Amino acid sequence: MIKNFLIIGCGLIGSSVLRSVAKNKIAKNIFIFDKSKKNLSKIQKLKIPLKITNNLNSIVSNMDMIIFCTPMSEYEKIILKIKDSLSTDTLITDVGSTKENSLKKIRKTLKKKAVWISSHPIAGSEVSGPDHGSAKLFLNRWCIIIKEKNMNYKKIKILVKFWKRLGSKVLIMDEKKHDVIFSMTSHLPHLIAYNLINTASDFEKKKKYNLIQYSAGGLRDFSRIAASNEIMWRDIFFSNRSNLSNSIDLFIKNLKFLKKNIKLRNNKLILKKLIKAKKIRKKIIQLKQDIDKPDFGRN
Amino acid sequence: MIKNFLIIGCGLIGSSVLRSVAKNKIAKNIFIFDKSKKNLSKIQKLKIPLKITNNLNSIVSNMDMIIFCTPMSEYEKIILKIKDSLSTDTLITDVGSTKENSLKKIRKTLKKKAVWISSHPIAGSEVSGPDHGSAKLFLNRWCIIIKEKNMNYKKIKILVKFWKRLGSKVLIMDEKKHDVIFSMTSHLPHLIAYNLINTASDFEKKKKYNLIQYSAGGLRDFSRIAASNEIMWRDIFFSNRSNLSNSIDLFIKNLKFLKKNIKLRNNKLILKKLIKAKKIRKKIIQLKQDIDKPDFGRN
Repeated sequence: MIKNFLIIGCGLIGSSVLRSVAKNKIAKNIFIFDKSKKNLSKIQKLKIPLKITNNLNSIVSNMDMIIFCTPMSEYEKIILKIKDSLSTDTLITDVGSTKENSLKKIRKTLKKKAVWISSHPIAGSEVSGPDHGSAKLFLNRWCIIIKEKNMNYKKIKILVKFWKRLGSKVLIMDEKKHDVIFSMTSHLPHLIAYNLINTASDFEKKKKYNLIQYSAGGLRDFSRIAASNEIMWRDIFFSNRSNLSNSIDLFIKNLKFLKKNIKLRNNKLILKKLIKAKKIRKKIIQLKQDIDKPDFGRN
Repeated sequence: MIKNFLIIGCGLIGSSVLRSVAKNKIAKNIFIFDKSKKNLSKIQKLKIPLKITNNLNSIVSNMDMIIFCTPMSEYEKIILKIKDSLSTDTLITDVGSTKENSLKKIRKTLKKKAVWISSHPIAGSEVSGPDHGSAKLFLNRWCIIIKEKNMNYKKIKILVKFWKRLGSKVLIMDEKKHDVIFSMTSHLPHLIAYNLINTASDFEKKKKYNLIQYSAGGLRDFSRIAASNEIMWRDIFFSNRSNLSNSIDLFIKNLKFLKKNIKLRNNKLILKKLIKAKKIRKKIIQLKQDIDKPDFGRN
């Protein structure tokens, strides 16, 4: 059991960590910091035993574990504020979605004042804020822990155990590999969704057709992802811009190739591509990355 | 009530028409044609009173209404087979997703042997076949009826009433407008989804990372749409290739613009774009084009 546990930032992810840590009795004392009074008042209504602090400096030295659940663009400011009060023995982690640039900044700012081992739970939703959190958010989901040179293996073990107790399947990889993989499985899909919705909206204005009302034909699915938190996703796009840029280029190259072959009515090639994509859906369901109900069980 | 009603093609859509027509007592006698014996045996298990025919020519002259629910690429062959047996008073409709090229072909082949008024119910799923049909598939969904020059208004009225009795909201528009709208709200999203899934799969092979297993970060949503029937979607892409091509170009132009501004870390512009997309999700939910449960209520 962790004695003193601090959550910095208590939105969707932070409040889900809170709920799950409390439910599974993972920490003795839970401390919460959030700059939003609205979030704090929502957190208090959960009736979970915890201490709210508005002065991080006065408590961080006593913390055994700290988890950053703020947008990544907030990290630097907070680290600068607390670093001189930190104990070198404190384990710090975060839940940010990109790692290479983010960890460079963290190292530079933190200067070994504590042990920072980065995490990325592959869980989330298009809705934000503590009211949407859930103790089950991390259940059966992957959590990536970032392995760097000269790791503190004792602390890694603690972190692995922590995520497992939250219900996650843990995988350890380096930050470069992490950012390459998620540029394709997460960051590109989100950018594509944002772009498709905005393109449809521009098109609607230009053509003066009310086309959004017909979005049940496929567009609506993309709109869910495109409703994700804008601060979080701006941070991700900026932080992983180099890998994302490569993924965009590959996507555009393939899209142009499809366009060309549709124009040519290349029956064999188009059928092959569509059948290939269908098989990947099956694999995703087999890997338990999605439910197998048609239409996500919506209707 | 329609006296003699024939469904040609009894997959997901045809069997949903069948279920709903039977449930709502819209036709006195229901006739079914499907070239797949497997589909017919599944249809028989539904225990709906109907007559299966394997000889269209022998019955079409007695039909009051015929609905084509086959892939669009099958229409021509079937029309050629039955046109000389058709009564000029029979109302024929279809459920195809593109209209301009499709109607040109139909006119040319049918030669006014019957009254063809085209329909497009905005309903479907990534799964195919009669086992997945539902009497509720068209409930509260749009159905577009195509208005052409010199329309038979008496027959249009019958068709509007038909779809309304299946639970749909009916809208009448011309085939050009229809194809422009759905190139953006349906055909482009499907092509994008197919392309994203295939791009991720290519990337996986190239990088030798098992990245599909991390698709819960966003990719999985696209894989559902990319699991749609390949014959149906090949037909749509080929048939609406000109509008689709314009939509692709607009999409790529906007994606390149986003890429440039991510590279420049243009904070103001990127935030504006992400917030804009989020607002459209709200509009889609207000327009009842999607459920408002986070994550489609999956978890």
